[in-house]
Amino acid sequence: MSETDYSNKHVEFEVPEPTPEEQARLDEMYKEMEGLHTLPLWRTIGNLMPNEPTPEAVAHKWDWSQLSKVAEQAGELVPVGRGGERRAIGRCNPGLGGNPYVSPTLWAAIQYLGPGENAPEHRHSQNAFRFVTEGEGVWTVVNGDAVPMKRGDFLITPGWAYHGHHNIATEPMIWIDGLDIPFQHVMDTGFFEYGSEKITDDGTPDYSRMERLWAHPSLRPVSYPGESEFSPIGRFAWEHTDAALNEQLALENEGYPGVVSPGHAAIRYSNPTNGADVMNTVRAEFHRLRPEAQTIPVQEVGSRVFQVFEGTATITIGEKVFELSQGDMTVVPSWQQWHIVAGADGVDLFCFSDHPIFEKLGLARTFTPEGI
Amino acid sequence: MSETDYSNKHVEFEVPEPTPEEQARLDEMYKEMEGLHTLPLWRTIGNLMPNEPTPEAVAHKWDWSQLSKVAEQAGELVPVGRGGERRAIGRCNPGLGGNPYVSPTLWAAIQYLGPGENAPEHRHSQNAFRFVTEGEGVWTVVNGDAVPMKRGDFLITPGWAYHGHHNIATEPMIWIDGLDIPFQHVMDTGFFEYGSEKITDDGTPDYSRMERLWAHPSLRPVSYPGESEFSPIGRFAWEHTDAALNEQLALENEGYPGVVSPGHAAIRYSNPTNGADVMNTVRAEFHRLRPEAQTIPVQEVGSRVFQVFEGTATITIGEKVFELSQGDMTVVPSWQQWHIVAGADGVDLFCFSDHPIFEKLGLARTFTPEGI
Amino acid sequence: MSETDYSNKHVEFEVPEPTPEEQARLDEMYKEMEGLHTLPLWRTIGNLMPNEPTPEAVAHKWDWSQLSKVAEQAGELVPVGRGGERRAIGRCNPGLGGNPYVSPTLWAAIQYLGPGENAPEHRHSQNAFRFVTEGEGVWTVVNGDAVPMKRGDFLITPGWAYHGHHNIATEPMIWIDGLDIPFQHVMDTGFFEYGSEKITDDGTPDYSRMERLWAHPSLRPVSYPGESEFSPIGRFAWEHTDAALNEQLALENEGYPGVVSPGHAAIRYSNPTNGADVMNTVRAEFHRLRPEAQTIPVQEVGSRVFQVFEGTATITIGEKVFELSQGDMTVVPSWQQWHIVAGADGVDLFCFSDHPIFEKLGLARTFTPEGI
Amino acid sequence: MSETDYSNKHVEFEVPEPTPEEQARLDEMYKEMEGLHTLPLWRTIGNLMPNEPTPEAVAHKWDWSQLSKVAEQAGELVPVGRGGERRAIGRCNPGLGGNPYVSPTLWAAIQYLGPGENAPEHRHSQNAFRFVTEGEGVWTVVNGDAVPMKRGDFLITPGWAYHGHHNIATEPMIWIDGLDIPFQHVMDTGFFEYGSEKITDDGTPDYSRMERLWAHPSLRPVSYPGESEFSPIGRFAWEHTDAALNEQLALENEGYPGVVSPGHAAIRYSNPTNGADVMNTVRAEFHRLRPEAQTIPVQEVGSRVFQVFEGTATITIGEKVFELSQGDMTVVPSWQQWHIVAGADGVDLFCFSDHPIFEKLGLARTFTPEGI
Repeated sequence: MSETDYSNKHVEFEVPEPTPEEQARLDEMYKEMEGLHTLPLWRTIGNLMPNEPTPEAVAHKWDWSQLSKVAEQAGELVPVGRGGERRAIGRCNPGLGGNPYVSPTLWAAIQYLGPGENAPEHRHSQNAFRFVTEGEGVWTVVNGDAVPMKRGDFLITPGWAYHGHHNIATEPMIWIDGLDIPFQHVMDTGFFEYGSEKITDDGTPDYSRMERLWAHPSLRPVSYPGESEFSPIGRFAWEHTDAALNEQLALENEGYPGVVSPGHAAIRYSNPTNGADVMNTVRAEFHRLRPEAQTIPVQEVGSRVFQVFEGTATITIGEKVFELSQGDMTVVPSWQQWHIVAGADGVDLFCFSDHPIFEKLGLARTFTPEGI
Repeated sequence: MSETDYSNKHVEFEVPEPTPEEQARLDEMYKEMEGLHTLPLWRTIGNLMPNEPTPEAVAHKWDWSQLSKVAEQAGELVPVGRGGERRAIGRCNPGLGGNPYVSPTLWAAIQYLGPGENAPEHRHSQNAFRFVTEGEGVWTVVNGDAVPMKRGDFLITPGWAYHGHHNIATEPMIWIDGLDIPFQHVMDTGFFEYGSEKITDDGTPDYSRMERLWAHPSLRPVSYPGESEFSPIGRFAWEHTDAALNEQLALENEGYPGVVSPGHAAIRYSNPTNGADVMNTVRAEFHRLRPEAQTIPVQEVGSRVFQVFEGTATITIGEKVFELSQGDMTVVPSWQQWHIVAGADGVDLFCFSDHPIFEKLGLARTFTPEGI
Repeated sequence: MSETDYSNKHVEFEVPEPTPEEQARLDEMYKEMEGLHTLPLWRTIGNLMPNEPTPEAVAHKWDWSQLSKVAEQAGELVPVGRGGERRAIGRCNPGLGGNPYVSPTLWAAIQYLGPGENAPEHRHSQNAFRFVTEGEGVWTVVNGDAVPMKRGDFLITPGWAYHGHHNIATEPMIWIDGLDIPFQHVMDTGFFEYGSEKITDDGTPDYSRMERLWAHPSLRPVSYPGESEFSPIGRFAWEHTDAALNEQLALENEGYPGVVSPGHAAIRYSNPTNGADVMNTVRAEFHRLRPEAQTIPVQEVGSRVFQVFEGTATITIGEKVFELSQGDMTVVPSWQQWHIVAGADGVDLFCFSDHPIFEKLGLARTFTPEGI
Repeated sequence: MSETDYSNKHVEFEVPEPTPEEQARLDEMYKEMEGLHTLPLWRTIGNLMPNEPTPEAVAHKWDWSQLSKVAEQAGELVPVGRGGERRAIGRCNPGLGGNPYVSPTLWAAIQYLGPGENAPEHRHSQNAFRFVTEGEGVWTVVNGDAVPMKRGDFLITPGWAYHGHHNIATEPMIWIDGLDIPFQHVMDTGFFEYGSEKITDDGTPDYSRMERLWAHPSLRPVSYPGESEFSPIGRFAWEHTDAALNEQLALENEGYPGVVSPGHAAIRYSNPTNGADVMNTVRAEFHRLRPEAQTIPVQEVGSRVFQVFEGTATITIGEKVFELSQGDMTVVPSWQQWHIVAGADGVDLFCFSDHPIFEKLGLARTFTPEGI
């Protein structure tokens, strides 16, 4: 796409100066059109069909210390139970009218579960994941399989899988929830059903059953042939993510390929039955930058969310610059150029995006301004 | 899905009656949350995650006689040219806030081109098609290929193909434009570029070049191997559509399969390189019902638009009933049950939908209440 | 592949001159190996793993006048019926040990059916097609669907479809049968079952039912969604093939793309449900060359068979040159360079190959020596 | 397939008793047909198109103690070097005419490399793997990546990857080679090229670079998007295989799904970029049976090879029964019913097959006679 000149701007559509009589007829016509529930393209094309994406969503940063504090407060004041379902606090992109949409497609909440608390089971067509920023002691039960949640783990709950959470620890636990709620809401595709009030498996195994079956590198159980549209692995344990990133950087040290760009390692969580993203609508990745390393500036169709797992970084999104510390989250709206510079100790970043939607629909585009 | 009980409704989330002091703290917390650009799930879940789709779009009918009249008026009062680009009047679903969206994903306009007029060339990432309700004499030039437009023809302009129109006849011409403008607008995926001011090929051939190469039944030119993500056929001429539908009904008369259901014939326009829909985001079909025949009631994720090509029909959408005559258009919002009953002379209907989007993303569902 | 140096030849493996005692031990070892049903690679690698394919099949031409004469004789002397099943005479590649294999994968027979005769129904896992070189009056009944056979028609009988033939005319009829018999024989994949002794539908319609449903250009019946692994169209009528080829040449005259190379038009019969070949293991095409036009020399993995439908041509295959007249058939073994020069009146050629097998298995290669 | 009656047998084709004169004409005709390089179907159909596969390959067992002894002898008497390329001894199925084909598609050799020896680099279109039955100390260098070989490891060398081996240990090492040599030989698809005389990387790392990048459970390096037609992982280390099988049996103990059938655990080595088999033409699996456990009897299109890694078992193939001890290999020809009963200590079996070929071509069939 690099040859495209995106400076091309919509010109003003100039109707020849109408006479007063013509103007009257025009006014009447536009009024009639409105009455007929229609709108002429020539009066709206600049907004509807811009030269390039002009998202209403804006680049924004949510501070972890503030959010975790208000989550704790909610833990004190608001119970968890049927009806409200989850003590989850969704981020609202300031450009999106107060809706709890981190972008037009994605939901990103902070969820808080106190010691001994249970979040009842339900299922929905929305695809969900959790990323654990701190602590342990919660098991999420997905279709009857008890899945441990520990710091650094990435966990999925694909659409229409029953799931509930329980905290057996003596400490509260906080994690990040990501879903495609805004997409499914705008598209009118959402279904929801209540399940058991109580968790259906109160076991506290070290590994979930689906992990034990599937999380061996490229070894499939013969008993599960074929392709599944989401990953049968429900938990991607931190130990593997960490090891994979370390190997990429070690290979770079040895002079071999593997990193995305100098000092920038990254893995994508994937579906072992087809190598694709873990779920149809959501991509999830983990990025590690060496101290002072930076990513290549890029513009992409679709939105990305980053959360700092450890370390510090500076992210530039369009004209905005945010300083990021542990737990901070930021969103990159569609087609805004972004790049990240790691702080003095490097940075570990969890990342998710809606890119699979646009790749599947032939609408994905990427532009690296420096031609790299 | 038939075993699912969709009567399951969200229960009210009842927080135990707070004391006045607690209430004050709650109020303060909610205010703080708002300040942090967040919103708690437990106060919004009923709206965000309904038990089944609750579209804001409503079932609606646009009357052809009214619309064609206002289009003619526009032909008199508003020129066609650079900036406004097209004399197209988009339908606004009354539930969608005055936007020219026939549904959350689709645009459906009436376009008018006077004798001798030219609509300048441009291209955009939005996928477009035209369906000709009446007349002939216009050629649309797609990537330099002059494509005739005649009554009953279905024509596509896939995303990023340059295209313009010119009318060489002595009569004005009106047709239907369909695009995925709302989807691409909400998703921030749209790109647009101006092309030539004048049409790049002023030929008036009987058939476009891409038709001559590709529109032979399941005979591929060896010079074009592989798969294209949209149909290389730009024009699906009426003569073939009509013949295919007639054969389905004749086979039904002879006692053989082929129709969708009794008295209901239908074809889907497809991509000869992979058998899929003509474009990634839009499905287009043509339906023919015998006199008094009816379609099977169904609920579907996604939205459908019908336009009567000939004959009359009654469509029931949820609780609404519309009488349809030639040229009338109606929209079925997501998950609303619909069925059509043909009038005394039967009915021919052009139909388009956003179903491929949801099939590709694993979000499609269909429910036939009578279990048929 | 053009940068590969295929001149690389296997060197002789030189074992250091053994002493007589060593030789005795070697001899004993080789004998023991044989007794253990083993064979050392170092004594066979040159044959087993050549630098490039060294097919045992040879380029060969079968003369139509001779074959049709012997087919007529068979019509007189040998009845058609259960057990023998078909009056089909298979071509034996002279390099393949007297087996009726035109190549290691393909069978190509001439079939003769006298007036009033019936070939009983059966089905088999082998994929079959017919190409009609002359005449009409036979209907092949495929899964109960009576399919007319006329000069120039291409007809398929995918694996495991019941089929029989009957000739209602007063003249005998001759056509070409192509199957993947050798492939399935060597691979031990073949299944076979008898069906009805008599044809199950003695209708003589102008078009088969599956044609009437499916042979409309890129218009799919809505009642048959999804993908089929073979074409649901059983008959590709000559009128469409002829028209498609004429259009390619007309486009070339007008200066537009479409032909394979100058003066060389070609179509591939395809599966409308996925755009792929008509059957999993067999590709079928029709080629038309203008007078004196020639194809681009090429080497391909897999074997191709050509039969002249009309006109004359010279084909060069490796070092051999054959003059071809109407009805003559020739085979190109794997990786042998071939090209065709049309005679003074041009040439129409039916062609089939096993290329889909190798494309599906990642083993296809093509090399155009002149770099075109 | 269970409803199919495979008892259906070809009937004798009975030509009405010819008169002596007719017989003379028939004899003459058959002679003429032969001269024209043709063969009539009615005289060969019973052999060519049997009711079900009648493989020439036979069930057979190769004894490990005998083979390893002869391999050691070869180590003494025959050097490894350019021309012979490998000290590999291929198994010859007794039904396949003395060719080194374990089945019509597969090659299975025992390879021996003495201490300090090098097998020079080359590449070929044939897909290859190694399975290590004993020892360590050899590194195979695949496209410049040094891959360690240890007991229980499964290693692949996909078609056209350069590879050589070197043994740095003080002991000789023996392993199993599997390739699709017979398939590519019969199909005329084979290409071969010499590479470096000496190994291009004499490192002896604990893990190969491609393992370090890719062998993390379902975590893809972001730097390698998309699909590869073979697994980028070159080594599947024993520790993972062993762990995966143990987990399946543990889950069975706990009452959960995962095993293929009672007491029968199995994993399939797969391609992390698409979830498919590691290479296009070869499937590889590892099976573990508890003491006395047995597999479900089955008939399959295509051939399977088993080798005992540890323990003992009895395999029944058609009417033959073989007792298997450590290192013994056996082959199951197409469509022969087989089942395995583990010995008193259970059994670990490496297994490979050509099943992906037939699945890709729509020719796969499976039949479980007991309807299980």
